[in-house]
Amino acid sequence: VAEVELREHERIDNLIHNNLKIIQNTKEFRFSFDAVLLAHFVTVHKRDKVLDLGTGTGIIPLLLSNRTMQEIYGLEIQPLFVDMARRSVRLNGLEHRLHIIEGDLRRPERYLPLNQFDVVTVNPPYMPLGSGETNPSSSKAIARHEILCTLDDVVRASAQLVNSQGRVAMVHRPSRLVEILGKMVKYQLEPKRLRMVHAKLGEKPNLILIEAIKQGQPSLDILPPLYIYDANGEYTDEVKQIYF
Amino acid sequence: VAEVELREHERIDNLIHNNLKIIQNTKEFRFSFDAVLLAHFVTVHKRDKVLDLGTGTGIIPLLLSNRTMQEIYGLEIQPLFVDMARRSVRLNGLEHRLHIIEGDLRRPERYLPLNQFDVVTVNPPYMPLGSGETNPSSSKAIARHEILCTLDDVVRASAQLVNSQGRVAMVHRPSRLVEILGKMVKYQLEPKRLRMVHAKLGEKPNLILIEAIKQGQPSLDILPPLYIYDANGEYTDEVKQIYF
Repeated sequence: VAEVELREHERIDNLIHNNLKIIQNTKEFRFSFDAVLLAHFVTVHKRDKVLDLGTGTGIIPLLLSNRTMQEIYGLEIQPLFVDMARRSVRLNGLEHRLHIIEGDLRRPERYLPLNQFDVVTVNPPYMPLGSGETNPSSSKAIARHEILCTLDDVVRASAQLVNSQGRVAMVHRPSRLVEILGKMVKYQLEPKRLRMVHAKLGEKPNLILIEAIKQGQPSLDILPPLYIYDANGEYTDEVKQIYF
Repeated sequence: VAEVELREHERIDNLIHNNLKIIQNTKEFRFSFDAVLLAHFVTVHKRDKVLDLGTGTGIIPLLLSNRTMQEIYGLEIQPLFVDMARRSVRLNGLEHRLHIIEGDLRRPERYLPLNQFDVVTVNPPYMPLGSGETNPSSSKAIARHEILCTLDDVVRASAQLVNSQGRVAMVHRPSRLVEILGKMVKYQLEPKRLRMVHAKLGEKPNLILIEAIKQGQPSLDILPPLYIYDANGEYTDEVKQIYF
């Protein structure tokens, strides 16, 4: 495995369960468990060509590198993360098939071939603009608020990049489910799998995981809920298998 | 309480928890637990004027008569059920404020005032036409398959009958969630509450309960799942409170 340079406030974290390493900056947006859940949820076959939109640290491409032998792309608009994710790719010796592209998902045709990916993943900003962002140029604000892309941008780009019968998987907030499903249908992405993520039994979900098929047949499969903690406040067995 | 005539194959069932009686015919479609769950799920205030579309035996109006002091209407197309539900109303001494109307929900303006109800409930047929109906004139086929009304008919009628800021509540199958939410948005019914019903922990849901507000603000509240059975195969406490 290559040695890579670390910059100020950066550290290397081990993704033990997956035998991977990732560089993160303690002062910037770091990957969340939401991204880990999305990487676990999405259907990926061994020969699927995968793209992650707004890849940030590159966590989703790194995790999916264990599930496909094909090329994986990550598109990221912020140069700081492009640089960091590229060094994480080298750290894991994956530069022959994991490519971090600097670019804006609102103009996907400038950076990537359209209708060519078998799987597109995206963990977009959850909050509409004007819902309390403090410093709109910070990496945390850009990851959380729709500053550089709206939900419509994200779904449109996914639909343009994925091939017919390919899959688009997204993690988002339950409050926006109606809008998400509506946008997907608008762009010919037929929602096929939906899973709610709850902190624990008896609570409302905090997250939704959705997978759509481009030009798929209508019929939604709603999966059993994923619970993060059991009644004793310990991680559930399923969460331990995903991550720990 | 009035004495009412029973016809062939009819019997009186007690809804013990609600102190109500209902006439059912052992040879025809009988009310399901789905309808009971919908009556429990829907938000009804004490002064709400309520309408149930495709009321069948009248189970939902009867159950909701405990929650509002206002008038309740049930619209039903099949004369056999209109007659049966009217006798159930008399059996419970509710004829002063519970009205069963014979009519077709595809033409609601012929039978009912538009934009006048605070709450509209509907437990529509779940299955599209051509999905295995055997005897299309039987009451069971009409209740289960979209023979006399489609999902679009049901959502359109609900939207026409409910007042602005009024609520429409529906029970349906998870596989059709995308279509249901899309139709609701099409007719200006904003989905506000969603609850999944699962037989037990770890299983996929069998039913979805949805409540929309006409011309409401977008933002969906997904509730904790409702489980019917616990790990020992007994009814959960919540189900016992609803029904037993």
